[in-house]
Order: sequence, then C-alpha cells, then structure tokens
Amino acid sequence: MGDIRGTSSGSAGSGLKPHPFDPLRPEEISRAAEIIRSERGNGHIFFRAISLAEPPKKEMIPFLDGDHAGESELTRPARCARVQAYVDKELHEFVVDLDAATVASDMPLTGRHSYIDTEFMAQVAAACLADSKVQQEIETLKLPEGATVVVEPWAYATDGMKDMTDRWTMAWFYMRLSDNPDANYYAFPLDICAEVSNSLEVVKIYRLPSGENDKIHEEKLEFDHRKIHTSSEYHPDLVSERRTTTKPYHVSQPEGPSFSIDGNHISWEKWTMRVGFNYREGMTLHDIRFEGRSLFYRLSLAEMFVPYGDPRCPYPRKAAFDLGNDGAGINANNLKLGCDCLGHIKYFDGWLSTSAGEPLKMPNVICCHEVDDGILWKHTNFRTGNAVVTRSRVLVLQTIITVSNYEYIFLFYFQLDGSIFYEVRATGIMSTAPIDIDTKVPWGTIVAPGVLAPYHQHIFCLRIDPAIDGHRNSLIVEESHPLPYTDDSDPYNPFGVGYATKSEVVERETGLDLDFNTNRTFKIVNENVTNATTGTPVGFKLLPHYSQLLLARPGSWHARRAEYAAHAVWVTRHEDGELFPAGRFTMQSAGGEGIASWIARRREGQGEGAESSAESSAVRDEDIVVWHTFGSTHNPRAEDWPVMPCEKMVVGLKPVNFFRNNPALDVPISTQDKNRSVSVHGGQ
Amino acid sequence: MGDIRGTSSGSAGSGLKPHPFDPLRPEEISRAAEIIRSERGNGHIFFRAISLAEPPKKEMIPFLDGDHAGESELTRPARCARVQAYVDKELHEFVVDLDAATVASDMPLTGRHSYIDTEFMAQVAAACLADSKVQQEIETLKLPEGATVVVEPWAYATDGMKDMTDRWTMAWFYMRLSDNPDANYYAFPLDICAEVSNSLEVVKIYRLPSGENDKIHEEKLEFDHRKIHTSSEYHPDLVSERRTTTKPYHVSQPEGPSFSIDGNHISWEKWTMRVGFNYREGMTLHDIRFEGRSLFYRLSLAEMFVPYGDPRCPYPRKAAFDLGNDGAGINANNLKLGCDCLGHIKYFDGWLSTSAGEPLKMPNVICCHEVDDGILWKHTNFRTGNAVVTRSRVLVLQTIITVSNYEYIFLFYFQLDGSIFYEVRATGIMSTAPIDIDTKVPWGTIVAPGVLAPYHQHIFCLRIDPAIDGHRNSLIVEESHPLPYTDDSDPYNPFGVGYATKSEVVERETGLDLDFNTNRTFKIVNENVTNATTGTPVGFKLLPHYSQLLLARPGSWHARRAEYAAHAVWVTRHEDGELFPAGRFTMQSAGGEGIASWIARRREGQGEGAESSAESSAVRDEDIVVWHTFGSTHNPRAEDWPVMPCEKMVVGLKPVNFFRNNPALDVPISTQDKNRSVSVHGGQ
Repeated sequence: MGDIRGTSSGSAGSGLKPHPFDPLRPEEISRAAEIIRSERGNGHIFFRAISLAEPPKKEMIPFLDGDHAGESELTRPARCARVQAYVDKELHEFVVDLDAATVASDMPLTGRHSYIDTEFMAQVAAACLADSKVQQEIETLKLPEGATVVVEPWAYATDGMKDMTDRWTMAWFYMRLSDNPDANYYAFPLDICAEVSNSLEVVKIYRLPSGENDKIHEEKLEFDHRKIHTSSEYHPDLVSERRTTTKPYHVSQPEGPSFSIDGNHISWEKWTMRVGFNYREGMTLHDIRFEGRSLFYRLSLAEMFVPYGDPRCPYPRKAAFDLGNDGAGINANNLKLGCDCLGHIKYFDGWLSTSAGEPLKMPNVICCHEVDDGILWKHTNFRTGNAVVTRSRVLVLQTIITVSNYEYIFLFYFQLDGSIFYEVRATGIMSTAPIDIDTKVPWGTIVAPGVLAPYHQHIFCLRIDPAIDGHRNSLIVEESHPLPYTDDSDPYNPFGVGYATKSEVVERETGLDLDFNTNRTFKIVNENVTNATTGTPVGFKLLPHYSQLLLARPGSWHARRAEYAAHAVWVTRHEDGELFPAGRFTMQSAGGEGIASWIARRREGQGEGAESSAESSAVRDEDIVVWHTFGSTHNPRAEDWPVMPCEKMVVGLKPVNFFRNNPALDVPISTQDKNRSVSVHGGQ
Repeated sequence: MGDIRGTSSGSAGSGLKPHPFDPLRPEEISRAAEIIRSERGNGHIFFRAISLAEPPKKEMIPFLDGDHAGESELTRPARCARVQAYVDKELHEFVVDLDAATVASDMPLTGRHSYIDTEFMAQVAAACLADSKVQQEIETLKLPEGATVVVEPWAYATDGMKDMTDRWTMAWFYMRLSDNPDANYYAFPLDICAEVSNSLEVVKIYRLPSGENDKIHEEKLEFDHRKIHTSSEYHPDLVSERRTTTKPYHVSQPEGPSFSIDGNHISWEKWTMRVGFNYREGMTLHDIRFEGRSLFYRLSLAEMFVPYGDPRCPYPRKAAFDLGNDGAGINANNLKLGCDCLGHIKYFDGWLSTSAGEPLKMPNVICCHEVDDGILWKHTNFRTGNAVVTRSRVLVLQTIITVSNYEYIFLFYFQLDGSIFYEVRATGIMSTAPIDIDTKVPWGTIVAPGVLAPYHQHIFCLRIDPAIDGHRNSLIVEESHPLPYTDDSDPYNPFGVGYATKSEVVERETGLDLDFNTNRTFKIVNENVTNATTGTPVGFKLLPHYSQLLLARPGSWHARRAEYAAHAVWVTRHEDGELFPAGRFTMQSAGGEGIASWIARRREGQGEGAESSAESSAVRDEDIVVWHTFGSTHNPRAEDWPVMPCEKMVVGLKPVNFFRNNPALDVPISTQDKNRSVSVHGGQ
C-alpha cells in the first residue's frame, strides 16, 4: 500500500492532494460509492455511511515525521474510504482504495445493525400513526381537542427478549396542544407504547406503567385532563415573557483572530493540529503539537451511553449509545454565526453521504474561535509593589449535536500554558415518561403535571492517543502519601507533616479507578525523554472528571454492552481498529466486544498468534492509548425543565514536567492600552 | 441593643446611614479608634485591625425582613466595630459601639498573637541583615559579585519546640543577581536560616538540610556557583523574548453593563446581594437573593492553610494560615483597569486601618463585571429544524490577594440559571528551598539549578451560611444506588438496570466526606417549603471540588490546628462568633479551637448551659452553616516555574428543585443581530 509522490503542501498542507488525516472530500465520497457500485452493480445498494478509513499508524508515523521535517518526497498512505451499506438488505462494510479504485475489503456484517437511519425512523413514526390498532388505542385516550400525536421512535436497547436478531424500534407517544410545530411535545408523554419490526409492522401496543409498583397494564385509561398545562414551552413564539435586562455584549478583534487556518490544519500561538470529521465521532483532532513537539496523535470522543434508571418494563430498553447507534457527525448542528459563539469565528463544513452514495454537505459543523478566560498568571512583588499580569486566551473548537430530545456541546480548549481541556455540556430537553397525578417514584422527578423525568446516566469516553515526544509512552499512577510518623532518620518525619509521592508504571493493559483521597494522578510519560530541569520523564497528566460509573448491575445487558463504563481510566496497546470502547457495532449489540474484552483476549494470549500474553498486553514504553470514562448521574431537577441549563463536565490534559518551565512566560503583559476596558463609576 | 430609627434607603439602601452589612466607613474607623483612645488614653495603643462587628443574626433577620418588605420603620442593629490592638504591648480585642460611643467589650488576648504585621516583618528583615552573626554567615557563603541578599520572614508554624508563648519569626534567605528589584530572588534560595524573637533578636542561625537524608548541618558550605542561571525571570524588564502573535481582544458593551450598584448593594438580572470587605476574609457576600427569594445569608472564604510536605527540620514550620495569620483583606491587590478584567468594570474600594487607627484606603480591592460563558441552553427541534439558543452571561465578583510569593484569585460567579460558582485560582511564585546540585528528594520538584519547589497543600474552606427560603434549613445527603437484581415486584428490577436515590437528613453537627462513586450529593433544603412541581423540599446542592484532605498525620500540630481539614463537608448550628473553622487565632495556635472542637463541645453538652447535648448539636430544621473544605495537593511541575499558570479549583451551589422550572427560560434568544460576530473566511 502507498505510492511515492511529492507533496506541494509542506507541514501546513492543504495543497491539491488531501492530507492523509483530512476527511473525505465530496468527490472522494462519490468515487467510493461509484467503485462499490461498479463492483456490485447488480444489487440494490443502500449507503449508510461513507467516511475516511484512516491510514494505519505505522504508515502515518513516517509520513508525519517526514512532513514535519519538511521533506519533499513523502510516502503517502493510500487514500481509503470505509463504507457501510446494505447490499440487497444485507449489511456490509467495505474498505475502498480510492487510489487504486478497488474494493480493498468487503465484510458482510451478519447479525449486525447499522446506525439509526432518520429516514427509517420517520417511516416507523408514519407506520405507527397509520396503524389501525394504534389509532384505536389513541381513540381510547380521549385526548383533548386540538391534540396532535407525535411519535418518537427509539432504537431498542438490548434486553434479551426479542432483540437478538432483527432490528426493533420502540415508539413512544407524545402530543402537542398547540398548532405550532415547535411546541414542546415532551410535556405530554402519553401512556401508550408500540414495538415496531424492521418491516414496519406494529407488533405490540401496550399501556406504560404509571406508578411505583405498576407494570404494563391492560386497563385502558383515558388521558387525565389535569395534566394539561402551558408552562413547559421554551420556543420564543410560545413564551410570552422574556426579560429585557440583559444588555449587549460584543467581542471585537480589530486585527482579526490569532489563529490561521489552512484546509483542516489549525495553527494558533504555539499549537498546531488537524481537525477531522466523520459520521460516528463527529469532530476528531489529529497530530497535536506544541512548539513543534508531538503531544497527541489523536483525540476523540469515543462513545457515550445514556441508560435510564427506571426498572419497570419496557423502560430498560431506553439506553442509547449516542455515538455507536446515532453518530455524532450525522447529528451535528449547523452552527449559526452570532448564536453559538462570539468574536471572529471560522466554521468548518463536514461532508457525509446520502443513502444514494452522494456527498451530503453538513455546513458549519465545527467552529473555531478564541475566548478570554480571565487571568493566566499574575505576580506582585510585595517589595516593589509592581504587578505583572497576563490574560488567558483560549482557542475553542466546538461542535454541537442533537440526539432527539437532548443536545450535547463538545468543546476542546487549547490554552497558552500547554494544557488542553475537553468539556461536555449537556442541554436540551429531557426524555419524559407519563406518571399519574399524585404519584411519586424513587427513580425520577416530576417536572410538570403528569410528566416524569426519569433518572439516567450520561457516560462518555474520551479516547486519548498520546504521542508525548514520540510514540513510545507509559502510564504512571502516582499517589501522595503521608510519611510514617517517626524520629528515625529514614524517613525522618518527627513532626508528622511529611508526605511523598509514590509512582508505579502500569505494565499491562488494564482498567483503573480514580481516588482523590490519595491524590491519585495519571501521568502519560515518555520514559525515554528526560526533562532537563527536573530530571524526570516528560509527560502530561489527566485531570479526570470525578463521576459515578455505570449503575446497572454487573452481568446486566447494559454492563455487558458498555464495557468501558466499568472503570474510569483504561490503558491499552494501540491497535488501528480499536476506536470504540463499547465495540464497533453497538446497535442492539449483545456486548462482549468492548475494551474489557480486547484486554482479556490479549491477556489470555489469544491475540496475535505467537506472542505470549505478557507481550501482547504490555503497555510500558509502547504505543498506548489511554481512555477516560466520565459522565453524570443525572437525577433531574425541576430547573432542568423544559430546557435544561448546560451541565458542564470537564476533563483536562496538563503538561507535567514536559516543558523546562512555564511555556506561557512570554505571553504579552496585560495592559489597558491593549484591552480597553471601561470603568463604571457612581453608585458609591 | 438597637434603637428605632427610620431608614431612607429602602431595600437597595446606600442612603446616609450605612446598611448594617456595609463595611465600616472611614469616619467610623477613626471614630472606633478615638473611642478606644479616649477610654484607654494613658496607654500606648498600636492598632492592628478595625473591621465591622457584624450584627447578631437574630437582630439582622427582622431588619432584613422589614427592609425587603419595604417597611419604613426599621429597628436597626447597633453599629459596632471589632478592634484588635496592642495596649502597652498586650493584645486586646475590643467591640466598640459606635452609636453609643462606648467600648462594649474588652477582651485581653493573653497568649494570643495578632495578624502578621508587614511593618514588623520589615523590621525582622532589617534586624537580620544588621546582625553581625548573620553577616558572618553570609560572608562564608561567598556569594557571586553583585548579589543582593533578600530576607523573607515567615510566621512560625507551631512545632511545639519554642512557639508556645512568644511570637517567633523564621527568616529565609534568598538573593538576586540583578540590580532590578523585580528580579526573581526565589530563584536563588540560600542555605541559611535564622530564628528571630519578638524583640527582634536573631536567636539562632543555621544551615538548611540540602539532601534527602540531610539534617541541619554544621558545615559551612559556600554557595555553589553552578546554581547561577538566568532562566527564572518573569518581569517584562527581564524577559527579552515576548511573543507578538496574540492579537487584541476587546469586550464592548455599547449600552453599558447589565448590573446596577447602589453603595455595596448589587443588582443584576434576577439577583441581589451585598458585598462586604474586612481585614481577615477580604470579600464577603451577604443576603443573596434571586427574584427576591432568600438563598444565602452569607458566603465567605473562611480559612486557608498551606502546609509544606518537606519533613526535614525546620521546614515543618512552613505552614501558613493565609487568612488567620495574614488576612485576605489587608493583602488584597489594587486591581488595575484593563489588566485584571475586560469589559465594563465597577471597582469597589475597601477601608482598613493603620497602626495609628487612621482609615487606610485599599483602592479597587473588588471588581464586578460581566463575562460571556458560551451557551446557556439550546435545543433544536429535529422535526422542524428550528434551533433556539441562549447565551450564558455571568456576573463576576473578583478579588486577588498576594501573600508573599503566592497570589490567590477568588471569584464568585452568578449565573442566569440561579447557580453560583466559587472559583479559586492559585498563581504567583512558589516558595523555594535550596537543594544540592545532582540531588533529588521525594517531597519536592527541582525547578531550576539548586532550586527545590517543595510539595505542599492548599486547603481552603468555604463557609456557606444558607437561608434557603428562610433560616430553618437542613442538610440532606443523597446517594444513587443500584436496585437489587430481582424479578420480585418490590423492587421490580428484572433487567438489573434500575437505580434509585437514598436520602438521609443529617440530624446532628458533624463532618462528612465526599464519595463520587455513589454520586453522594449534599443538599441544603428547607423542609418547610415544598416545590409545587416536584413535591419535594426546595433546596440548593453543593457541587464540591474533589480533592485530597490534609496529609499531615492525625495528632500532628498541623492537624490539631487545621481541624476543618479533616473532612470535606461540615454542618454546624449557626453561632454568631463561629466564622473561622481553624479558630479565631491561628497565629502560632496550639489548635483545639476549630470546627471539630465546637462540635465536640456541643455534643458533650458543654454548650449553652442547660441544653441537652442532642439539642445543642441538632442541625435538622435549624439555622445551620455548611462548610466545604477543598484544595489542592500541589506537587510542583516545572511548568509552574517561575510564575505558575493559574490552577483552578471550582465549587458550585446549584438550585435543586428550588424553582418551579428553569429560571433562565426567559433569557433573550441569542441572535447575530445582537451579538455581531464576524465570520472568518478562507483557508478552506
């Protein structure tokens, strides 16, 4: 694979040829579809996703090394597409070599299901509404005059009952009482539910449980008119009172932004990186460097799982893998200038594909801009009274996805001091269920009359593929412990105040947990490179988000499917295909294909043939990947309704003895001459 | 106490008379000193601190109720000053009734020490440099040509050796090699140390330990010239290379800020509050309300402790109570327009006192401004494609203190969604110690040649005096637990996915710990007020900062003195005098006077006479105070040198079923028309 060609682009590289990390261009998407069609011309092909098949790392490393060294002759990895498509209703995954114009591989995905298909979901909704049994059931509800029933189809989370082969869809029913299609129908969850087969047949309709000890019931209750209310709207057309006290706030950048963009290459202050975009992960970041030194090969949100805590059947089927089932790329918002960010903003478009294999433009899916984050560092010499202060300018890369009711805002922040923060903001509307008036349950909050917002969890996984000064890295677990209370000389701690750090290098693939009580710190280091100041290996540390892990019981379908949710930190050997810690195919998956399974397989030596298990799972001074599982146990508040104010979750990556000293020491001093603030007088 | 007078000020109230929460005005400071002088005219009086003695809460509650109800006749608590002064070298604490013009109380503080006195510290430094033994010792160091020795006096942290009676000061020695007085002398810690008595006598001089198993040594080594370096400067006059890539970034507010200020009263969006300022705590906040509903009676940083982890004598004496010993008010920075914040900024001055009892103006000690914090909430209706987005405008109250080498930035953030965040940013220069070239120790990081930055902790305590819809509040500890895996009907959890919350109301005063593994949540509720939507008590929850507690051993002086550092959350009954959880007098304190001691005393029924212990320590449906201990185990990084980029610690207070629904639902919709962002083109 890979032919030798020159590149005219150099390290910044847009040029004529795409950089190997660039997402597929529209013409490449068309071409991939054409190649498959020409080889499979006689079948009916329904395309689901066409994205870049990223080159193997062993080919990318020499390419990147050469490119950064400014070499003119580079061995460029073959440009390939990964294509998921139904061929005569059988799901296949193809890898298409775009350079050679051939299908390089074709894997039939027997028993697998592809991503949720919005067209199909619309068909499910239509089939429900057209179904006479559904119509009869709605009839029995005796809905208020003017009610419009809205069907919300959800992929069926595995419960082992009927989901092991066919694709199933659960249809939840809501209504809106306004003519305005933006009325909040989640405010009126109806007491019926339908199961719909892959062939769009409504197989079962039933009434939902409505009290704590209630189960699916036979009784056909009417809609309780005491549930009618008007306080759950959020759309400006439907909310009459809106405050006028918030005065305008503009960010102006008279000389423009401090970043520069060349294709998908971003350069800002001492940072460089490449931004990618694909169907499943949405925004990805590649080849992140600071002052030209390599830090991370790839950063990506790898999965998120949203299980609901209501134990009553059929609610255990509410458990969504929002990346594996839905896709963060396909659900990315078209960001609007002046709405989603302030200042000077660069928008990146994404390209995905239609079911016909045509390029589908996803406009403005990623925005890039700067924000001011207050003080970066400050010191006043108390002897001279002289203060020196610098401000923290931050580069933001933001993408927002809508997954039915919820939205997630994903932000990478690059800081002047060499640190990176990854923030998730959860907002949008909570998925609701009906509850009887004057009833309570211990697994949900009543947010409006008859509206239960069930407890649930959001469990994310950030995949960190480090390249700290090179690709051979190690994970160190460091803790701070008090020294023994002793007057002896080793250790000498007569006052009982001494403490020291204890470090352990992780030798084999494993899952690890957080412990703030010992200040447990996870450092990704390069043991081959010593910091000249400190005499210790260069590294970055993870600043984790402390949060509860999966509440579903071990052995439950949830736990078997979301393997990554069992530990907060994982370390594995890098393998090209291992991007998704709940497995590549999460839709109605039976589990056993996630990160814990990979590790177990390699520990048991079932890995790459002749290697011993110790070798096949060794992670010290190897090409490793670190994964951080974090999230939120979201037990709703009244304040989260009808649209929830963002809940923030923040993860950091911070240099730890990577630089010789503060890399932001040369940041411009903050002065009024530059910043032009305005003093507010009076009032005192 | 308290006379009946009219107020012309109403609820916003600056008026002619100060609001009872207003800090002392300059004329009140002078008056307090005069009253003491007139009653103690024959003694020599050296004033140390003159601040407001806040009125007893039982007097303030009716005053606030009446004021907010717009009553014209209010019983105004007596205006009192709390004064610390040496009278003929004996420390006293006076309470002066300014209305009655009398000394209401006079407590001699036998065996106590007042705050660190910068004038005295300068005398200590001068005494050291004038001392012939010190001069001889410096001589033996054979310092490089042009070296200027700098003495850094530190209050002596208790080690039980000689500190039980007199005040002692440790003098640490540094040098600078530049003529510029802003040169970073912490880059050259010298290997000598002096102990100075209260009468400015240098009692002992010795050489510091310099290797892992080293102790105080007799050998008089010369300064090792290999330690000379130039890379530790930060002042713009001394750093030649400064980047020019960061382009200007302005915040403009064409219609001015959204807040309004009347004296110390701040009104912004749905919030109102009063800002206070005193010698010890610096910024304090009072009577915080949202839509007129009471939330918090008082919020304040109550203490911070910075113990160092180097076990070798004399380093255990490095352990500073930066509030109790130093004072956040007296060390507050004069904030400069355009340096410390952007946009439209209101600065508040503070007034403290000189040693002569004259008012001392502390200009611009608190700033108030707005920032934009990205998206507040967003939802796109996927059926209509219509997005609705609002932005998060935040009101910031900021104060910054310099305590010798370190700075701390303290920020309160008020959010549109009813939540409050308290952020501490640690920056400045680390306190350093000498270390031999080619030596390492397990309790510090080498940040420059011969410069050890020892491990240390910063342990803060935020005092939260709640008034959630009134003054009778309770603390609830809630956890999320999986339900048993069972097919029985109670609980019915056949798929093992169910979970529920378990809540417990804390009945008696106690210290509690954090546990993210159970999603342990601390809710401050009013059990007498039910949220009409959820049917549960109204409340606010603490979003804690997860951090290691005190590493010093139980029983050590550190642990006995910093009692609050033993637990992350404490709940106590409100007592007017209990503001400081390490005790009121921390300077060289012997401990046993902090929050754990208060609780133990009341549990043992030694409290207020006849009350039983259960009554005297009951905290359910009482006037309570919640305390959050948090901080950082700061094991320095090379990147923290020479000035450290801010390390952020964030604590939140978030409404939990306090409002009927999202209180920010009426925030203006974000539009380009209002926000005027600029699209960056090209590059793609």
